[in-house]
Amino acid sequence: MSTGQGQDPGSPLEAIQPDASRRLLIAAVDSFAVRGYHATTTRDISTGAGLSPAAVYVHYRSKADVLQEICLVGHDAVLTHVREAVGRADGPVDQMRAFVSAFAGWHAVNNTLARVIQYEMGALPDEGVAEIARLRGAFDRMVDTMLRGGAEAGAFQVDDLPGTRLAILSLCIDVARWFRPNGRRTPRSVGALYAQLVLNMLGADSEID
Amino acid sequence: MSTGQGQDPGSPLEAIQPDASRRLLIAAVDSFAVRGYHATTTRDISTGAGLSPAAVYVHYRSKADVLQEICLVGHDAVLTHVREAVGRADGPVDQMRAFVSAFAGWHAVNNTLARVIQYEMGALPDEGVAEIARLRGAFDRMVDTMLRGGAEAGAFQVDDLPGTRLAILSLCIDVARWFRPNGRRTPRSVGALYAQLVLNMLGADSEID
Repeated sequence: MSTGQGQDPGSPLEAIQPDASRRLLIAAVDSFAVRGYHATTTRDISTGAGLSPAAVYVHYRSKADVLQEICLVGHDAVLTHVREAVGRADGPVDQMRAFVSAFAGWHAVNNTLARVIQYEMGALPDEGVAEIARLRGAFDRMVDTMLRGGAEAGAFQVDDLPGTRLAILSLCIDVARWFRPNGRRTPRSVGALYAQLVLNMLGADSEID
Repeated sequence: MSTGQGQDPGSPLEAIQPDASRRLLIAAVDSFAVRGYHATTTRDISTGAGLSPAAVYVHYRSKADVLQEICLVGHDAVLTHVREAVGRADGPVDQMRAFVSAFAGWHAVNNTLARVIQYEMGALPDEGVAEIARLRGAFDRMVDTMLRGGAEAGAFQVDDLPGTRLAILSLCIDVARWFRPNGRRTPRSVGALYAQLVLNMLGADSEID
């Protein structure tokens, strides 16, 4: 197993310190993405990182602890990314456009990491799931605030607020499943398309710039 | 491992004959869904089906052959389901409503099977992927026909046809990731909500009945 196989360029994992932790998390994402969490051993992760077979245990308590750290780093990164994007926008229409564009685009750029987070999270122990669920609640609240603000301003038509929020988040998350870095669409074009489709979904009076 | 754990009620796998094949495919879906394809052995599948350890090889050439059969049965079932639903509808708006409602609803009802198909398909050999890709093309053509017909009739606003089709299919497929049988939404209510959101996305002049 080669380190970096299938790794997303510019992954938030690349900022992890110290060096050994970073290499372990990157190797773990590679293997979890290709073979799945349960088929990956701590030895696979250590040797994939170019370290001795037991190296995982120098830095992490367990394989589940490695997955938990990956989920935390990934959720923190995408939350920071969308908060910055929304913070640069004014008003519900532009904020929603910024959110969807950033959230969908992140799942395209970081599709390998995102698939691991989304599809392997069920392997976490209950307290790990609870910690991640708290982080995920921040996305729900952001979208709810935009939907409510847009509806109150008469910019959006929202009949089922939690259902609409669920659909918006789900649409963007599934980008990680189908996006291919060498495909015909770029992360930026996916973000622009999805932002416009979501604004249409909300009945917003808006066209692509 | 208990047979039936996490199995979707009314799964299309339940119609498989002979009995041993059906039990093997159901046990395989259970284990692939919980532990992943690569962490599941043919022995796990056989014993999960209540059969002798090598029983998989009486009915299938390999573990990949089992996954291929699961993917074929699942795609055939959902294709039949949406074709019947669309066949009962008239005109682009009602046909799109019927399609999205049936496609999203199927992914809710069959969420375990659908997750295995969607997330483990990468484990198939190239010729297996090609066979499934041909089946998936039928969904693309159905949606393209509805989008084109709706746009020509002035019922839909479609700026990027392949992108819009991709988003519609993706939104429905991701239901398999988040849907929980004991959650607050039923497959029928998800189908109705998503149909309305997609019609909004297409600028169709339509309200929930």
